[in-house]
Amino acid sequence: MSALQPVLDRLDRDLDASLERLFALLRIKSISTDPDFAAECRRAAEWLVADLKTIGFEASVRDTPGHPMVVAHHDGPAGAPHLLFYGHYDVQPVDPVELWDADPFDPEIKERDGVKIITGRGSSDDKGQLMLFVEACRAWKAEHGSLPCKITLFFEGEEESGSPSLKPFLEQYSEELKADVALVCDTGMWDAETPAICVGLRGLVGEEITIKAADRDLHSGEFGGAAANPIRILSKILADIHDDDGRITIPGFYDGVEETPSQILKSWETLGETAESFLGQVGLSVPSGEKDRSVLELVWARPTAEFNGITGGYTGKGFKTVIAAEARAKVSFRLVHQQDPAEIRAAFRAFVKERLPADCTVEFHEHGGSPAIQLGYDSPFLTKARDALSDEWPKPAVMLAMGGSIPVVGDFQKFLGMESLLVGFALPDDRIHSPNEKYNLESFHKGQRSWARILHALTK
Amino acid sequence: MSALQPVLDRLDRDLDASLERLFALLRIKSISTDPDFAAECRRAAEWLVADLKTIGFEASVRDTPGHPMVVAHHDGPAGAPHLLFYGHYDVQPVDPVELWDADPFDPEIKERDGVKIITGRGSSDDKGQLMLFVEACRAWKAEHGSLPCKITLFFEGEEESGSPSLKPFLEQYSEELKADVALVCDTGMWDAETPAICVGLRGLVGEEITIKAADRDLHSGEFGGAAANPIRILSKILADIHDDDGRITIPGFYDGVEETPSQILKSWETLGETAESFLGQVGLSVPSGEKDRSVLELVWARPTAEFNGITGGYTGKGFKTVIAAEARAKVSFRLVHQQDPAEIRAAFRAFVKERLPADCTVEFHEHGGSPAIQLGYDSPFLTKARDALSDEWPKPAVMLAMGGSIPVVGDFQKFLGMESLLVGFALPDDRIHSPNEKYNLESFHKGQRSWARILHALTK
Repeated sequence: MSALQPVLDRLDRDLDASLERLFALLRIKSISTDPDFAAECRRAAEWLVADLKTIGFEASVRDTPGHPMVVAHHDGPAGAPHLLFYGHYDVQPVDPVELWDADPFDPEIKERDGVKIITGRGSSDDKGQLMLFVEACRAWKAEHGSLPCKITLFFEGEEESGSPSLKPFLEQYSEELKADVALVCDTGMWDAETPAICVGLRGLVGEEITIKAADRDLHSGEFGGAAANPIRILSKILADIHDDDGRITIPGFYDGVEETPSQILKSWETLGETAESFLGQVGLSVPSGEKDRSVLELVWARPTAEFNGITGGYTGKGFKTVIAAEARAKVSFRLVHQQDPAEIRAAFRAFVKERLPADCTVEFHEHGGSPAIQLGYDSPFLTKARDALSDEWPKPAVMLAMGGSIPVVGDFQKFLGMESLLVGFALPDDRIHSPNEKYNLESFHKGQRSWARILHALTK
Repeated sequence: MSALQPVLDRLDRDLDASLERLFALLRIKSISTDPDFAAECRRAAEWLVADLKTIGFEASVRDTPGHPMVVAHHDGPAGAPHLLFYGHYDVQPVDPVELWDADPFDPEIKERDGVKIITGRGSSDDKGQLMLFVEACRAWKAEHGSLPCKITLFFEGEEESGSPSLKPFLEQYSEELKADVALVCDTGMWDAETPAICVGLRGLVGEEITIKAADRDLHSGEFGGAAANPIRILSKILADIHDDDGRITIPGFYDGVEETPSQILKSWETLGETAESFLGQVGLSVPSGEKDRSVLELVWARPTAEFNGITGGYTGKGFKTVIAAEARAKVSFRLVHQQDPAEIRAAFRAFVKERLPADCTVEFHEHGGSPAIQLGYDSPFLTKARDALSDEWPKPAVMLAMGGSIPVVGDFQKFLGMESLLVGFALPDDRIHSPNEKYNLESFHKGQRSWARILHALTK
């Protein structure tokens, strides 16, 4: 008999007790962005440390200039991998509190639309999710008297307020925290039957450009037709960035972009997401990106150029026949695979300068840059975790990507040289960050079992 | 001996007396935009009526919902044309008054840079200019006991505050005010030696377009690459409006645009204005309009498309990775010759709709439209006035155009079916609307003589 089955059985038996523990954590008002709740944040960290000690973790609260971190270690057998598990114990504010059906800090089990749910702030994001792994460890230890590998738990208390202490902390404790792979539980399933592992996160380059022409605003009657118009110049430059097929024309832009393996594209096709269903959520139906690619490939695995803001001239009510002295745009690029943020930025700036007419100047202002994160689809950690998840849920696990970034994943790579496996059990209707946040009881139960399966798969 | 010479001689002899009259008018604080000065506006109108009666005009103050108009008639010999002369007795506010070297309402003769000037608000715009014609009539009447033709004077008191009463007044009194040609004295000379007649005023079509895509603002990580971006669509449409040679690509846009006669273009060349000198005023040097045309032709005789304002997405400090639900632009077209505002508006809207991707919508908002005014270069009134002006000044009169509109000229055409001859003697350094407004004594003296010459030329 495998080491796994008794652990799964124990998780089934202990579900009520594990809910009691989760509820105790959910009752702590650890709102990180509001200084009034700093003591509650510390109390959450201390609660976690005390709980982890009962399992046998060497756990401690670590002070930072902001809210404390929780770090806990447990040894494992020689030769087994070292896993780091990340979650965050802080939560979003609860305003407007009058929109909640019940006290956000007094969790309950309720039934909504025939589904049993755990109510309360943090139930899904992220206390419910971080406790999944803790419960899996607890059950494993109880059954076997040990854990199957060396495990480090790392819980942050500032994720919902920009993680100001994260980078310095990782830098300071890089030796202690570095593991073979990070397990990050802060994402969701594809749907209630289909677990998901996120293997790609697009990077980002942000730029602001200001085109300047005349040394003052001009009257369009007096100078129109002769003087350079910065809005016209800016529009022309922006319009040049995409060709008629939606491809980006900046030379070198696609350097480092890989084609997604066809079996991955096929697995995405089976998800049944169409342009109509994806864009229909926001009143659209026709993809605007590169032609002949599915909407999921466009948002998960292709780079973009987006114009996030533009302004110039008179934008108030009525009309003013002015030729503005300058016009500005905020432009961002989502990066995939090996695209280099610095090279993309330089290529964009060269592209703009090349199109700048005589007399005009351009100013660039940098707004951040980070490369994409891409796990190799054939990484052994990944395939083992995928199979383990597929064993637990009605449908096989899907390897998907995310359009946006999750900073901690980039930081783990940068400061600890460590890849992350993003596995989570939240659902799109969990209302994270909103009133009436919930976590399905099934997510909480099968999520624990899923982590036990992954632990087993990665260490057997 | 012609009828003209004694009139010119009398104007020379009476210069001091004419200055006294001008000063009396300048001392009246007829600031039309400030309700506190309503009584002063009426006083200026009454002063003019009283003065015109001394010449023999049948003159009256005509009430309007705003400041009153002055209308005065004087008969002339049968067979002679009927001339209407337009000016305005209201002035701009004087703030910031501390920047004036002297009291703006206590005019003086001063010497500045070796030139004798008349100081004070309204000295150039437009009291000094309207009195030129009054003085020419006074001298003619004094010498000959009559005027050489029927003359109607029409002075407005709301020109500096948007002329709200003008259109209804012209409509109500169209029969009374209609003449063979209007003489409008509210413009300037080319330079201190070169008189000018303005024969063209560009028209205007104003449009505001709003491109809408998704039904809410989107996160560019989640939807970027798939969802339509209104800023991108708007930029593309705006960029399409000009080709690489600066021509406007909207089908039918150039219908009704005539080529400027080559002798007129040549006369403009002799003015010595270059792209560098014209654009150098505002820190530019290279014309951005249609290729192979002089800068004066571009602003005086060619139509334009200008983008006067643009806004969309996040335009504040920092960066927001948003795909906006909508983007807006204010677009205006300067029209020349026979271009039809309604047709241009329709052609623009069709151009935009044709480029609108699936899923997106556009809203149009109209911001006014008026056709261009263009006097035939061979109009007999025009050639006679040009010759008369050339006799008075060191250099021949130039027939120029103006980039912007002068509403009264369009209104005369629309409501009275009457063309306007725009002749004025202001100079670029007169600082109209600004502190230390002045009018050159020579403008005042030779301006009177110029109008006497034009009167003679149009009626002999």
